[in-house]
Amino acid sequence: MLEAEADTEQRDATRETGRLEAFSDGVFAIAATLLVLDLKVSVQTPGRAQTGLLSALLDQGTMFLAFAMSFAFILIMWVNHHNMFRVIRRTDHIFLLLNGLLLLFITFVPFPTALLATYTSRPNQTVAAVVYNGTYVVIALAFNALWWYASYKGRLLDRRLVAGPAQSITRRYRFGPLMYLACVGLAFFNAYASLALNVLLAVYFAWPHTAPATARASMKGPAESA
Amino acid sequence: MLEAEADTEQRDATRETGRLEAFSDGVFAIAATLLVLDLKVSVQTPGRAQTGLLSALLDQGTMFLAFAMSFAFILIMWVNHHNMFRVIRRTDHIFLLLNGLLLLFITFVPFPTALLATYTSRPNQTVAAVVYNGTYVVIALAFNALWWYASYKGRLLDRRLVAGPAQSITRRYRFGPLMYLACVGLAFFNAYASLALNVLLAVYFAWPHTAPATARASMKGPAESA
Amino acid sequence: MLEAEADTEQRDATRETGRLEAFSDGVFAIAATLLVLDLKVSVQTPGRAQTGLLSALLDQGTMFLAFAMSFAFILIMWVNHHNMFRVIRRTDHIFLLLNGLLLLFITFVPFPTALLATYTSRPNQTVAAVVYNGTYVVIALAFNALWWYASYKGRLLDRRLVAGPAQSITRRYRFGPLMYLACVGLAFFNAYASLALNVLLAVYFAWPHTAPATARASMKGPAESA
Amino acid sequence: MLEAEADTEQRDATRETGRLEAFSDGVFAIAATLLVLDLKVSVQTPGRAQTGLLSALLDQGTMFLAFAMSFAFILIMWVNHHNMFRVIRRTDHIFLLLNGLLLLFITFVPFPTALLATYTSRPNQTVAAVVYNGTYVVIALAFNALWWYASYKGRLLDRRLVAGPAQSITRRYRFGPLMYLACVGLAFFNAYASLALNVLLAVYFAWPHTAPATARASMKGPAESA
Repeated sequence: MLEAEADTEQRDATRETGRLEAFSDGVFAIAATLLVLDLKVSVQTPGRAQTGLLSALLDQGTMFLAFAMSFAFILIMWVNHHNMFRVIRRTDHIFLLLNGLLLLFITFVPFPTALLATYTSRPNQTVAAVVYNGTYVVIALAFNALWWYASYKGRLLDRRLVAGPAQSITRRYRFGPLMYLACVGLAFFNAYASLALNVLLAVYFAWPHTAPATARASMKGPAESA
Repeated sequence: MLEAEADTEQRDATRETGRLEAFSDGVFAIAATLLVLDLKVSVQTPGRAQTGLLSALLDQGTMFLAFAMSFAFILIMWVNHHNMFRVIRRTDHIFLLLNGLLLLFITFVPFPTALLATYTSRPNQTVAAVVYNGTYVVIALAFNALWWYASYKGRLLDRRLVAGPAQSITRRYRFGPLMYLACVGLAFFNAYASLALNVLLAVYFAWPHTAPATARASMKGPAESA
Repeated sequence: MLEAEADTEQRDATRETGRLEAFSDGVFAIAATLLVLDLKVSVQTPGRAQTGLLSALLDQGTMFLAFAMSFAFILIMWVNHHNMFRVIRRTDHIFLLLNGLLLLFITFVPFPTALLATYTSRPNQTVAAVVYNGTYVVIALAFNALWWYASYKGRLLDRRLVAGPAQSITRRYRFGPLMYLACVGLAFFNAYASLALNVLLAVYFAWPHTAPATARASMKGPAESA
Repeated sequence: MLEAEADTEQRDATRETGRLEAFSDGVFAIAATLLVLDLKVSVQTPGRAQTGLLSALLDQGTMFLAFAMSFAFILIMWVNHHNMFRVIRRTDHIFLLLNGLLLLFITFVPFPTALLATYTSRPNQTVAAVVYNGTYVVIALAFNALWWYASYKGRLLDRRLVAGPAQSITRRYRFGPLMYLACVGLAFFNAYASLALNVLLAVYFAWPHTAPATARASMKGPAESA
């Protein structure tokens, strides 16, 4: 195979993953933005327009909190998706479907968010918190499935990045499903505590484990030695 | 024509199909994500907030099933659209319009999905199942029209791919409309059976017929012989 | 200026127009897809679920027609926007704002579409048809403003395309506002006739005036003579 | 480091910022387009269909004004985001999160817009205007945080543009939060005056401070001297 051909193939592959990223980004962006639609419904409840708007807004504090929390979670998942695709260079049919499964669960997020904002009294609150945290168990499993499929024997990875950044992602994802399962369990005792743990997990996943500089360095490594 | 010019033209064409793909992806992503809006409406029915949330959620099993099913179908159509564009290298005015027609029917999917989720008792269930399956007859016809237009005498195809991957797509699409028509017919007797057949068809279209490796191989073929 | 620099600048400009196109495509795609939300509301009217779904669907024929018509119109506007950007190579601040104005009016389309689908008896029908056609007068004006700004003394155009394709666009857009104004006038006498004329205008704008082959040819012209 | 490698790295970085821009554009586009959903709700109020549509439309003048105003504001923020990214060449983890925070507040805009359109009588009008202007205080702070992070010691900037265009952005953003805070204060006295000041601020931010020509010139500078 000539170098020019390798180049063409690389460009083709980049275009492939590019389209997948663009589609995924679209779904992430829409799921995040649709959250605001829940905010509108509650305010335009008939009869409210006559009473004080200020007290109505203050009453709906939970709603705003749920909106901000879910938006932040979707954003953090997008950043992680983004980082995952930095080491992925190829796609195949099964990867497209697994990625789709992940997106399915992400578009579902506005629904449990609305539950959480609406059902604030016991015992419904417990059900809402279980469904909310349960959604993240499923998302964590989908993230792991996607990553395991892509990284198994370096199937779809950029060969130069298999060692450093890829291993860091593996370590990072490994305990996600279990931790979110702990959130679900906690929800049966205390809904607020389970959400607090969920927020802590989000902070963990938002934290930059692999500094971009390191990724860059390990990317240059093999090229320099060649 | 010099090589540099051919290059420029190729880049221009890539940009053209690129914009069409991006627009199509946007519509696919939005149509898929809008499905979740149906989920919200049913839960926020006035009066429900007081009764048990758990039983309300269990009651709405059909709704979640319809949501997941339609999301999966839109995703599979997106993957097929994606694979179709892997062999298409040019666009023209009529192709843009045919693609738009396809997108029109895809954005329509949330509507029959809502029907299916809402009308679960006979005889409305039959009507809902007929409309749902009928939508896929029309989508299958639109896919075929788009593909026939693009592939007729290799009009818009990448010349290097006309043989292998293109023929595989032709074979694959050919019986789609008829099969979905069978779903419609079946719906008059049993709504569940018709949906089960529809799911089987989706599995068929989700199945990787042309392995990416093969496509890649036949792409390299002529270049190597040159 | 060296050739390499000209290349960089060209790539920068392409990236600029690329981002504008992507943003515009997003708005077009969302506006088109949001139309389906109108379909859902009408079906889920409380009380309907008990009566026959079939007759309810047949009653709402106008709704489906309005949906399909507006989707087709947004699609045709997208194709025209697409064709306009084939001859545009640069953007500037005012162009961004004018393009945004056009997009504002396009996102407005679902509103008059809902009016048309809801208000089917006189005299409200007349008002709905006037608002609907009036929206297209404003859109036609915005398209002309955008194009006049971009093409005045070839400000933002690809120099190689000023003659052929650009003049064709100028000719094509010129009478749009007047024709849609005629639709508005006609709506006072007969709402259906005004919509029929609107559909004819859409067919006119959907028609490929400049064959892609010609555009390509005139693009190659100067390069070959160089 | 060889030149080819620097090229690869540059391309990688462009792809990174490219994906971030695409995601941001998606959110901007969806937030802008979702505004139209507020328009639909008000018209389809039950009982309205029987009364005159014309008077209903005229009654809702505030609603259309709020829609157009918020759309224009989102558009102007998009143009500014666009201009900011013209001088940004790299991204990092914290920048992604700060950008996400900005997007969170932008997706929130449809909510205060709906408040403004719905609550037009005192004292609710005051609350609505305070919330509306307050949203822009927060957005202005987020814009400043994003820019300060990116431009501090030229962290993520294109080195060739640090001097001219970057300083122009710094100057421009600096007083945004304070000015919008003045809008909030004014809203306690007169809601209309506060909105008028908000519109003036939008005109200021829409105004092209750095002419593209200048930006281009200062970009060429160092390259020419090299």
